[in-house]
Amino acid sequence: MSGWVRIVGLGPGCDGLITPEAQATLAEATDIVGYIPYVARIPDRPGLTKHASDNRVELDRARHALDMARAGAQVAVVSSGDPGVFAMASAVFEALEGAPDADTLDIEVLPGITAMLAAAARIGAPLGHDFCCINLSDNLKPWTLIEKRLRLAAEADFAMAFYNPRSKSRPEGFARALSLLQQVCADTRPIIFARAVSTEEEEIKVLPLPDATPEMADMRTVVILGSSTTRHVGRYVYTPRFAK
Amino acid sequence: MSGWVRIVGLGPGCDGLITPEAQATLAEATDIVGYIPYVARIPDRPGLTKHASDNRVELDRARHALDMARAGAQVAVVSSGDPGVFAMASAVFEALEGAPDADTLDIEVLPGITAMLAAAARIGAPLGHDFCCINLSDNLKPWTLIEKRLRLAAEADFAMAFYNPRSKSRPEGFARALSLLQQVCADTRPIIFARAVSTEEEEIKVLPLPDATPEMADMRTVVILGSSTTRHVGRYVYTPRFAK
Repeated sequence: MSGWVRIVGLGPGCDGLITPEAQATLAEATDIVGYIPYVARIPDRPGLTKHASDNRVELDRARHALDMARAGAQVAVVSSGDPGVFAMASAVFEALEGAPDADTLDIEVLPGITAMLAAAARIGAPLGHDFCCINLSDNLKPWTLIEKRLRLAAEADFAMAFYNPRSKSRPEGFARALSLLQQVCADTRPIIFARAVSTEEEEIKVLPLPDATPEMADMRTVVILGSSTTRHVGRYVYTPRFAK
Repeated sequence: MSGWVRIVGLGPGCDGLITPEAQATLAEATDIVGYIPYVARIPDRPGLTKHASDNRVELDRARHALDMARAGAQVAVVSSGDPGVFAMASAVFEALEGAPDADTLDIEVLPGITAMLAAAARIGAPLGHDFCCINLSDNLKPWTLIEKRLRLAAEADFAMAFYNPRSKSRPEGFARALSLLQQVCADTRPIIFARAVSTEEEEIKVLPLPDATPEMADMRTVVILGSSTTRHVGRYVYTPRFAK
């Protein structure tokens, strides 16, 4: 048996948002690797071994997946959302650095519905014009770089989507980011807190930027900040296709 | 019968990337509205009426969909990719402006796999760190704004995804954008031209930014420019999760 690694996006939570391509690959896999709650989404079946691991061990998990594939296993590395957006794909390629078989190992990334797009769809189309997407966790980059990007994104008048806004261990980061955005962006920009989109715990709040407070976000929340042109119509929020 | 509008993302091209939620909605619709090639992707069946229209009539198309829903039809407005990313969702909400039933009409957006995520997955994980997404068409915004955003995005060291890089009617825009990026970004950044991803005509080119030329893109191409940290490993391109 020839081994492979597929890095599979499970979408934001509900099965209706997992692509048929991803489902077909999960059905062929001999091994599932991933963070505990994502692995738990895959039904058990004969011939399938699950390897669930804790958060923050992405690189160990990626190495384990590559090693199993080298030994002939068909390994699905599962991520929530899209594996290429702040998820497992980069960790797998990082684990491949320096490997003599980097060119020949059979690795593919299968895209998924990432949280910001699911959240945007629920509320209308806040990402309907130019936007940026920033990971607010300062585990892997300095706060100074996050701050620089926030300032430039505000100056560019992008709508912005924020991943990992607020971890339990470092809750102060999001307070700083929010305070900076409240200083540099117009008060009319709407901000959207979308938690656990497409699951039973889904909760969506929309409010003017000045009314936002840090505890409105947790690690299951994606935050979207409108641009200066983002508008309300009926119960929807959208960013028009045109700009001046 | 109570009418509705669903704005449905068909993904980048192949059926394996259409979500089950989107498929279920297409199966319930009485009417399909959209740009000719996207409507052509939906199989005919008894009870389904297709309304295909040309490019650049997004607002007329959106109004038509809303009016049919008001008259009781169950209307799927189809977009390629994700409807909230430079596609039909914003046009539908724009068409809803000022309508007395803006609050009560039954409208939902169903997310899809947008082109940049499908393209990124094919080549590795070039959008694995902070990135921005810019529509390069100057039909609906001035070139000065595009230029400002490109300069600020380069300064922020975002990876960048570009939609609608080069139209037949205005091919010079992409030449200007590319020339600007070649001036302000380091020569080591890789650029990816991904055409017709997930279809039989799929074609993907990766090269150093200085080697890119405008005719490498057309309207079916999404272009991804790496950040300063984007790297090659084996035959893949990825942006590491960490930054300095």
